[in-house]
Amino acid sequence: MLQSKLFTKTKKEAPKDEVSKNAKLLIRGGFVHKEMAGVYSYLPLGLRVLKKIENVIREEMDAVGGQELHMSVLQEKSLWEKSGRWNDEVVDNWFKTDLKNGTEVGLGSTHEEPLSNILKDHISSYKELPVYPYQIQVKFRNEARAKSGLMRGREFLMKDMYSFCKSEEEQHEFYEKSKKAYTKIFERVGLGDKTYMTFASGGTYSKYSHEFQTLTEAGEDTIYLDESSGLALNKELLDEKENLEEFKGKDLVEHKSAEVGNIFNLGTKFSEAEGFFYLDENGEKQKVWMGSYGIGLGRVMATIAEVFADENGLVWPEAVAPYKFHIVALDVKNEEVRKTADEIHRMMERSNIEVLYDDRDLSAGEKFAESDLLGIPYRIVISENNLKEGVLEIKSRKDGEIKKIEKEKILKSLLESDS
Amino acid sequence: MLQSKLFTKTKKEAPKDEVSKNAKLLIRGGFVHKEMAGVYSYLPLGLRVLKKIENVIREEMDAVGGQELHMSVLQEKSLWEKSGRWNDEVVDNWFKTDLKNGTEVGLGSTHEEPLSNILKDHISSYKELPVYPYQIQVKFRNEARAKSGLMRGREFLMKDMYSFCKSEEEQHEFYEKSKKAYTKIFERVGLGDKTYMTFASGGTYSKYSHEFQTLTEAGEDTIYLDESSGLALNKELLDEKENLEEFKGKDLVEHKSAEVGNIFNLGTKFSEAEGFFYLDENGEKQKVWMGSYGIGLGRVMATIAEVFADENGLVWPEAVAPYKFHIVALDVKNEEVRKTADEIHRMMERSNIEVLYDDRDLSAGEKFAESDLLGIPYRIVISENNLKEGVLEIKSRKDGEIKKIEKEKILKSLLESDS
Repeated sequence: MLQSKLFTKTKKEAPKDEVSKNAKLLIRGGFVHKEMAGVYSYLPLGLRVLKKIENVIREEMDAVGGQELHMSVLQEKSLWEKSGRWNDEVVDNWFKTDLKNGTEVGLGSTHEEPLSNILKDHISSYKELPVYPYQIQVKFRNEARAKSGLMRGREFLMKDMYSFCKSEEEQHEFYEKSKKAYTKIFERVGLGDKTYMTFASGGTYSKYSHEFQTLTEAGEDTIYLDESSGLALNKELLDEKENLEEFKGKDLVEHKSAEVGNIFNLGTKFSEAEGFFYLDENGEKQKVWMGSYGIGLGRVMATIAEVFADENGLVWPEAVAPYKFHIVALDVKNEEVRKTADEIHRMMERSNIEVLYDDRDLSAGEKFAESDLLGIPYRIVISENNLKEGVLEIKSRKDGEIKKIEKEKILKSLLESDS
Repeated sequence: MLQSKLFTKTKKEAPKDEVSKNAKLLIRGGFVHKEMAGVYSYLPLGLRVLKKIENVIREEMDAVGGQELHMSVLQEKSLWEKSGRWNDEVVDNWFKTDLKNGTEVGLGSTHEEPLSNILKDHISSYKELPVYPYQIQVKFRNEARAKSGLMRGREFLMKDMYSFCKSEEEQHEFYEKSKKAYTKIFERVGLGDKTYMTFASGGTYSKYSHEFQTLTEAGEDTIYLDESSGLALNKELLDEKENLEEFKGKDLVEHKSAEVGNIFNLGTKFSEAEGFFYLDENGEKQKVWMGSYGIGLGRVMATIAEVFADENGLVWPEAVAPYKFHIVALDVKNEEVRKTADEIHRMMERSNIEVLYDDRDLSAGEKFAESDLLGIPYRIVISENNLKEGVLEIKSRKDGEIKKIEKEKILKSLLESDS
């Protein structure tokens, strides 16, 4: 992609009303545009990051037997009245609106009720369970305060999976499996080292739920980490520390953290409310056991931005970077530089290597500052000086390490590093 | 994919309140679930079709220089007041809702205003134009009547591209290019033979816009087709027939049709309203010329369903089919049938051939009826009788043609047909 064609530009300053580091950097880099507090549009670079995260999540959901669907935003009141969650005193972050005929509808913030209702229409026998539908779709929560940039959205993309099982035991088995899938997802997107499975409050049916919390000062949560086991406790459970086998007598360290995912045993509350039951081998009606498994994609992106950024800008892990390579051509008016850069760009695109090519006529200082801000993992510098030596420079955004590679060997070297 | 694991089931009957053929068949096949009139959830098979359509559109938008982004649903009032489109008397299909602090916000039905506002933030020079941003995202229109199944949604996925050009001439050049891209899209998804470029009303800045209309009795539009040129006229323009060079003196044939896409020259109305201008080579402030280019993904899917379905069910063109092949194993209790079917399924999945495998213990009649309803292009029948002959049967859903292929040669033959 030619940077001269990219319609977004970087900015020296973030909007004054933006206080969070993630949003400041993502806006300055042209990854997102702030529509209003808690509502962001994803610009081309931001959408590329989002899709990388989305694909990692999708692969891991498919690997545990997930089946992807796409449910509606608009929600029918009656489905939510059945579970008692329509009332604004019970769920206080609804956005609601009206059809032309006056019928009140809601904007979905989660989908237990409509999904139970859909499955009721398709599943009736023990032979058809368990199932694990999931979606990656836009959600709405009418947050009173939305001050943490992309961390807490009024509108946000979410992966929500739900399990529907024949028994509590079968549900718990899948719950354990989901823990592994989640651990894998956060490892793959680069947050593995800083993300801890954290015990949090449960509900009627299970004493505890589990959150995946990433250590960052920008987080809205406080957790207590047992460094020996790598398990943590949400602050809300601190009083119960000694009752929990995992934490009894342990020294816990307090951290600020961001909840990047959560998993929850739901019991039979929602399936029962929607009238979703199944017939067992003896033809007897049985309850369906549920779990829910959420990951906010924008929050993961924001957390990655917060955790890895340095004083010069964003630092994307390879797995989620908008491009893996950033060709920065200096002195683009020099014919040899231009020709070499054009050729390498063309070769890389032809080899399906993801690359952004800064072909603009700007000073080295401006280009490097902008490249640092964008945070693409590897910068390929093409300059008159380098070409005199017959080499190109590849600089790692993460650790600043510079390698010089012979011009003729560049594609081979990139292809090797890309596999 | 094992059909025994797919959580959706087909139905013999559609819901009584559903009158349109497309929705009836798509619901019966388990492709979609009706949440309320004009609001559908896409179940796994339906989502697969939708993603195929989405990918075709994305490829053709990228091919004309499109840059994908993803804008928010929630819309700030002030942006729409500037263009005069906030008022419900001007735009009568808004869904509106309130933030906790009482601020009124809208749900986007189109994105000229917010996109002009975003670009204003990034583009200021003639060097940075033209640009063609687009998105594939959920839209909301508060339709008073939503009776045509997935043809007219209150909530629907749409590809909307917008062009931003330096001059009217540059805009018209891109407009012509977009016609070709649209023609290609409808050809690729299988609607080429029945889709006609149709002159329709324009706006302040251009006398005419163009719609892509697919002939179908289920459509809500009426067009007049000049069969010699393949051009058509929307009913609303019939009075102007003799003023239009293309239609002067031509015999036109009336058809019912569905508008699967439209393109529109917008002039400078929205860019001006949002204060988006650029500086030309002489440093003088100039207006930005816009166009918009829409395709409703659900409507394309519904139109394909309407156009190709026969008395036995859906008939998907290969390019958008949820799977290309449907293995139907009869007598699955017969060990040789089961083993052969399992093995072919495994081989196909390993070769990345998209296949649904009906591994359930049902009668041949039930399986064939269901397979017809689902409309997957090629059915591979594996039965005791066939295996005695050492062959497998491949039946085309479209024309019923049956080929017998030697069991040993099946993979080679499928791989060839897949390329």
